[in-house]
Amino acid sequence: MSQPVSPAPVDLNADLGEGFGHWRLTEDEALLSVVTSANVACGFHAGDPSTMRRVCETAAERGVTVGAQVSYRDLAGFGRRAMDVPPRELADEVTYQIGALEAFARAAGTRVSYVKPHGALYNRCVRDASQAAAVIEGVLAFGTPLPVLGLPGSRLHEAAAGAGLPVVTEAFADRAYTPEGTLVPRTEPGAVVHDPDEVVKRALSMARDHVVTAVDGSSVEIAARSLCLHGDTPGAVALARRVHAELTAAGIEVRSFA
Amino acid sequence: MSQPVSPAPVDLNADLGEGFGHWRLTEDEALLSVVTSANVACGFHAGDPSTMRRVCETAAERGVTVGAQVSYRDLAGFGRRAMDVPPRELADEVTYQIGALEAFARAAGTRVSYVKPHGALYNRCVRDASQAAAVIEGVLAFGTPLPVLGLPGSRLHEAAAGAGLPVVTEAFADRAYTPEGTLVPRTEPGAVVHDPDEVVKRALSMARDHVVTAVDGSSVEIAARSLCLHGDTPGAVALARRVHAELTAAGIEVRSFA
Amino acid sequence: MSQPVSPAPVDLNADLGEGFGHWRLTEDEALLSVVTSANVACGFHAGDPSTMRRVCETAAERGVTVGAQVSYRDLAGFGRRAMDVPPRELADEVTYQIGALEAFARAAGTRVSYVKPHGALYNRCVRDASQAAAVIEGVLAFGTPLPVLGLPGSRLHEAAAGAGLPVVTEAFADRAYTPEGTLVPRTEPGAVVHDPDEVVKRALSMARDHVVTAVDGSSVEIAARSLCLHGDTPGAVALARRVHAELTAAGIEVRSFA
Amino acid sequence: MSQPVSPAPVDLNADLGEGFGHWRLTEDEALLSVVTSANVACGFHAGDPSTMRRVCETAAERGVTVGAQVSYRDLAGFGRRAMDVPPRELADEVTYQIGALEAFARAAGTRVSYVKPHGALYNRCVRDASQAAAVIEGVLAFGTPLPVLGLPGSRLHEAAAGAGLPVVTEAFADRAYTPEGTLVPRTEPGAVVHDPDEVVKRALSMARDHVVTAVDGSSVEIAARSLCLHGDTPGAVALARRVHAELTAAGIEVRSFA
Repeated sequence: MSQPVSPAPVDLNADLGEGFGHWRLTEDEALLSVVTSANVACGFHAGDPSTMRRVCETAAERGVTVGAQVSYRDLAGFGRRAMDVPPRELADEVTYQIGALEAFARAAGTRVSYVKPHGALYNRCVRDASQAAAVIEGVLAFGTPLPVLGLPGSRLHEAAAGAGLPVVTEAFADRAYTPEGTLVPRTEPGAVVHDPDEVVKRALSMARDHVVTAVDGSSVEIAARSLCLHGDTPGAVALARRVHAELTAAGIEVRSFA
Repeated sequence: MSQPVSPAPVDLNADLGEGFGHWRLTEDEALLSVVTSANVACGFHAGDPSTMRRVCETAAERGVTVGAQVSYRDLAGFGRRAMDVPPRELADEVTYQIGALEAFARAAGTRVSYVKPHGALYNRCVRDASQAAAVIEGVLAFGTPLPVLGLPGSRLHEAAAGAGLPVVTEAFADRAYTPEGTLVPRTEPGAVVHDPDEVVKRALSMARDHVVTAVDGSSVEIAARSLCLHGDTPGAVALARRVHAELTAAGIEVRSFA
Repeated sequence: MSQPVSPAPVDLNADLGEGFGHWRLTEDEALLSVVTSANVACGFHAGDPSTMRRVCETAAERGVTVGAQVSYRDLAGFGRRAMDVPPRELADEVTYQIGALEAFARAAGTRVSYVKPHGALYNRCVRDASQAAAVIEGVLAFGTPLPVLGLPGSRLHEAAAGAGLPVVTEAFADRAYTPEGTLVPRTEPGAVVHDPDEVVKRALSMARDHVVTAVDGSSVEIAARSLCLHGDTPGAVALARRVHAELTAAGIEVRSFA
Repeated sequence: MSQPVSPAPVDLNADLGEGFGHWRLTEDEALLSVVTSANVACGFHAGDPSTMRRVCETAAERGVTVGAQVSYRDLAGFGRRAMDVPPRELADEVTYQIGALEAFARAAGTRVSYVKPHGALYNRCVRDASQAAAVIEGVLAFGTPLPVLGLPGSRLHEAAAGAGLPVVTEAFADRAYTPEGTLVPRTEPGAVVHDPDEVVKRALSMARDHVVTAVDGSSVEIAARSLCLHGDTPGAVALARRVHAELTAAGIEVRSFA
């Protein structure tokens, strides 16, 4: 085509609605002014019905895409403890969560438009084909061919693609990568990038050039239609705003994938 | 019209899917061969995702109408302990439960076609206009004008009618009635009719003649488009089958209202 | 006696350990340097095992008395929704919570030394003799004659006294009082005193003179062996420190009742 | 000594109190007339406060030893789904459960006298030294050197012995054993022995001769101070009674280890 080459758009996603009852965690209001996709907790690791409604309402008002952040059923562990849930049960738990969120999304005039597993389920679906297949089975049962947001090359994306569901790749600007392009585990030193300048720089590099500097200094190619921002740390909102601003300044459109 | 007068059809409804995880309570399989409407527990007082899926699948196969049996969030008390849930929260909890069940209903090729509150919420919505309004607000948020199954003259039915939702009256063949047509509270002696013959007789009287004999021996008029059968007692299935058979033998069509 | 008259000591209590899993609410560390009694959440409205252990450990280190803050089982509502729990069940739930906390208290080298109901249970036990009796039955089953912290004149204190348990009166320096000496309900305007200077002044008046100025300007006598401080609001810790300092400066010993 | 050699006594243990709220599972009343040790569910996989109280009361009346059946926090999965609970959290969860049960045991005039992990935690502690150590740490925090009931040779028993806690070996008369003396996994055919005659025969062989016939026909030595009976299957009570009767008839004293 004769169109001038312009950088591909990038989505910014964050976990939202991760309080429960009296407890609050994520800065939902502020982040919904920055992100383009909201991973809404559905009640299994966090998220109560009223919070789900409020996040959906605000997201709909601001044109933010609503996604179901599905999780193991583990409020006490915030969904961060891997569980050996039998595949059939896990699939049903996923369907349940999407269905519950869909009711609030529709009431707010929008729809659940993608699925992203949370915490231990997310990590497990990187390598565990059986749990990944169960998640996808739960998505399929919901009936709408929802895109699945996840790590490029994950078992989750393989299962989604195999089932005909769109896959959306994401990267983490505040996480260290191995030369193979996988995340350095949190248990290792240097796994998290704390310097805001560095995070912004990596976000730009990921969105514009599709590369990131790995822990050994090498450059790694990385597919990232979406960048995941964290919303539960001090300074998270300010950092999210900076990433958004610098991406825009660099001519990269910040836009949802859905 | 010149059509011969024939008795109005009657629906048989029962609470189903009231196990949780490893625990079973209701004889779902057997009852789904008898009833025409299934009040499916949605996870707040009972009901796990896999049970919800199975009940929906069997109901759909057998042409049984699926309804959302919404409840206070109280697994430990089986939803039988009245709770002062703020109306906005209660409405959201109702929407959440309907949405979750809808996902399984659709996956099974059917839809949530009515709503019936459970236990303490049911009882409270007989007289408490605020809680009744909250339940109806939760139903409205779901977006489909679902019929509301409940006691004739209840605040719940008033709120539903006021909001433009269809109301469906139900009666209990195994419960004693006052001369005013209200249920004798369970705390009073004789509140429950245990004799199967008597239950069948009352069911026939309710469905055919719209009357029931009250505790003082008087006849009370009673609207009952649906009869509620209990599924958690020994002999429940056999009794349900008998009620169905004798209604049919009396020329009364057993058919859902939805 | 010929001893010089000196003001009675006063206890400062606060609700602590009211997070759950990943969620934090109360500033446990800081408040445990100010209060003399810690109302520790036991897992029913808030409080997970690890938080319970940590609060007990810190309390024991600092000589803070540990009390069981027992509640309705309602994580989603933070124990603030009144529930019609059958008395026998409620008594057992109270025993369970005290027992669980006792294990951590003993491990830390201390003991559960009093009981205080939380939220909706606290409020209900002011007037509801049946629920109050159930709470006391649960305390008695624990086997140690634990003091019961509560509102003077409450049904809870009547039941405790009737069962031979010590009662400890408490007052709220940041709450408005009626001329009859009861709390102005939170639903009424002016129910909460927000001005820190005013709170400190009322705390002094309560501890030294056993009086408080009611909403109509009259002086009301008020028994208060303990003052309840709130730990979940911004500025709570600073205010607690100020109350402690000014009580001490006024010659009032800040000391636990247990 | 000059005493005639007599067979060592054997304990019969069963999981009890495994209902939750409205749901019942185990035949507590009947089994408490047969077993000598009751593994009482503590609320994490099953077991509500009132059920815990009732089981403790009946056990105390009949001289049955009360043990804490500690579990992962997983009501929805009945504690049968392995969970990666961080060791410190797991230890605290164990302490919490023992403490809660102890309150009911003391109220009934007895004490928690041993600990046995449930379901997925039991299975995991056979081979996972870290989870086993966490369970033992939780027991130690309780402060009483409680015996630990488990599989001979398990990591759990190693950790208990290393910490100076007594270990009590158990065997399963209705489970198939490998030639190495380990349980045939439930996922393999023939893992469970269904024939009551065979179960009784194996129980006798285990208790009297400390041997069992493995799946390959060989004889395996097996330490079993206690035999585990199942209480949640049809015929469980009758089978338990038969085992008890035939052990006694064979001159083997059925007696708790505690």
